[in-house]
Amino acid sequence: MKIDKVGSRAKFLTVFPELVEETVEVLKQYGMPEDAIDWFTRNLNYNTPSGKLNRGLSVVDTYGILKGYETYDDFSPEEYKQAAVLGWGIELLQAYFLVADDMMDKSITRRGHPCWYRVKDVEEIAINDSFMLEGAIYILLKKYFSKTNYYVKLMDLFHEVTFQTECGQLLDLITAPEDRIDLSKFSLDKQMFIITYKTAFYSFYLPVALAMYMCGIDDEKDLKQARDVLIPLGQYFQIQDDFLDCFGKPEDIGKIGTDIQDNKCSWIVNTALNVCTPEQRKLLDENYGRKDAIKEKKCKDLFYELKIDDLYHQYEDNEVNIIREKISKIDESRGFKKEVLTAFLNKIYKRKK
Amino acid sequence: MKIDKVGSRAKFLTVFPELVEETVEVLKQYGMPEDAIDWFTRNLNYNTPSGKLNRGLSVVDTYGILKGYETYDDFSPEEYKQAAVLGWGIELLQAYFLVADDMMDKSITRRGHPCWYRVKDVEEIAINDSFMLEGAIYILLKKYFSKTNYYVKLMDLFHEVTFQTECGQLLDLITAPEDRIDLSKFSLDKQMFIITYKTAFYSFYLPVALAMYMCGIDDEKDLKQARDVLIPLGQYFQIQDDFLDCFGKPEDIGKIGTDIQDNKCSWIVNTALNVCTPEQRKLLDENYGRKDAIKEKKCKDLFYELKIDDLYHQYEDNEVNIIREKISKIDESRGFKKEVLTAFLNKIYKRKK
Ligand SMILES: [Mg+2]
Ligand SMILES: [Mg+2]
Ligand SMILES: [Mg+2]
Ligand SMILES: [Mg+2]
Ligand SMILES: [Mg+2]
Ligand SMILES: [Mg+2]
Repeated sequence: MKIDKVGSRAKFLTVFPELVEETVEVLKQYGMPEDAIDWFTRNLNYNTPSGKLNRGLSVVDTYGILKGYETYDDFSPEEYKQAAVLGWGIELLQAYFLVADDMMDKSITRRGHPCWYRVKDVEEIAINDSFMLEGAIYILLKKYFSKTNYYVKLMDLFHEVTFQTECGQLLDLITAPEDRIDLSKFSLDKQMFIITYKTAFYSFYLPVALAMYMCGIDDEKDLKQARDVLIPLGQYFQIQDDFLDCFGKPEDIGKIGTDIQDNKCSWIVNTALNVCTPEQRKLLDENYGRKDAIKEKKCKDLFYELKIDDLYHQYEDNEVNIIREKISKIDESRGFKKEVLTAFLNKIYKRKK
Repeated sequence: MKIDKVGSRAKFLTVFPELVEETVEVLKQYGMPEDAIDWFTRNLNYNTPSGKLNRGLSVVDTYGILKGYETYDDFSPEEYKQAAVLGWGIELLQAYFLVADDMMDKSITRRGHPCWYRVKDVEEIAINDSFMLEGAIYILLKKYFSKTNYYVKLMDLFHEVTFQTECGQLLDLITAPEDRIDLSKFSLDKQMFIITYKTAFYSFYLPVALAMYMCGIDDEKDLKQARDVLIPLGQYFQIQDDFLDCFGKPEDIGKIGTDIQDNKCSWIVNTALNVCTPEQRKLLDENYGRKDAIKEKKCKDLFYELKIDDLYHQYEDNEVNIIREKISKIDESRGFKKEVLTAFLNKIYKRKK
């Protein structure tokens, strides 16, 4: 499918206000007072459509590829809307996670705006607001899919992926709390669990699986084929993210990395822990995870000294080869398509931001 | 059904450790590290089984009544387990709400123990822990009900009631924040919305509806019959709770009321606001919702002066008459039973604690 990036985002965005209206309609049916309806509307609008929307768009694009469509014009309006509802479902799921994550991390801004819990008068109410963002997913699923034969599958999948993400978040929170630095808790295994569960399932597998259900291409064998590529792809994406945070140029990645100061259980520090000498380990123990630019610099210098960037490129070449190999062997006989997976890989491979 | 209160609670409690094990098994399948598995286990055990378990027990008891059982011995072991799973589903739902509510209210203790977020090293992680308590519900529903023909109905119902509760919580949070007292935001209508959505749906309607689905007595007419009695009953229960908080004897209710100091949007203050003079209103504006025993006393004296207790007893007599009338007209032809509703009413009517 030919995808015009700007146009596809714009089209996807036009659906959101309709979904807000339809969700808010439920509150009106309940007879909820106006001020609470306004609050919920603001919650939806502030937290959901402000990101890159890659995950949501992936549902629509994957659906188009599986259907063999050439452009968005090949979608019927109802079909586009349904695929977009699933896409916005992921964006709502992400909003639910991020509102809560920012509170747990005591973050200040998100996507250039104050985090929701830091908006005037919101504060702790953001916890309940995050719950309601999740609730909106199931209101929309019910409205658009309750009559389909895959409604149960959609709900089971959202439940499972939500729980997986929460498991990844839990391990992240107890392994790398910003105020209790303990590198002995870190390991590449834990880092892999965290990125797989906290990110890969909902960002990579979920959009494709949702589109597959909607197309009826959902044989367990095909879901497994998708998962077996998308989870390693998601891991690669996140490890690349860790690499760029440390070794990327700020002018490329559009921000200054903070993983070292944030005590992040990243691929970089875990790889360094695996190859460092006892003295270098001591340096990391004393300097990693501190809100201090000089200590941060010491860690970064060590990462360069240990040539973690070379190790990353080795990892990347190897991993991408494995992924390409797996894609080449995909069985398309039941309707699943390699193109779904290459579309993802091409967006990620050697990205600079 | 003959219900031995102590025995029924003990029996219900024996199921919980099995459910913990089965839920934790999912994390083990994921390959989650030991420390995270221990954390989740502790989360489940700390927050779920420590309450009165009335809601959970109601599922089992309602099921027994609908089946015409005389004692728990009439349940097959699988049948008891399934009903208990639904009951524990409500207890998990409540745990999810309460862990979060305590954070939002900055509460200190819950059921005689420190609130979860105040336990050492937990803090903000409690937000993700609350998410995982909710997640456990759907793990258990899938395990025990995915092969039944009412699995979708169970999920839809849990989703709907969860969202309703969150709507009630939202209105409560924005109407009666403890740090911004504004009685002009209060009204009996808002108070009624709050108690209906925040409490009545999940505490009264949900247990009965779950048992009805499990029995196959789930004609929309019967669900409506249940709802039409259980929602007013839940409202009455909560208004009674507000009454006891102010007018109950501490030796009866087992605690000292805090609603006045907590700026609670209770039936008491809303009724007072409806009948007070402008000077009395001024007294309330200046004294309600303050953490100050003298100001609290002034409000309480006013409530006595306004004879809010007499108005309560009028409300109670009238409401209970309406409820009894509705119960007497219940159509039992499709298998629904009045006894389900009278069992609830009898537990509540004229209770002192
Ligand atoms: Mg964060
Ligand atoms: Mg975080
Ligand atoms: Mg990063
Ligand atoms: Mg509270
Ligand atoms: Mg509260
Ligand atoms: Mg109370």
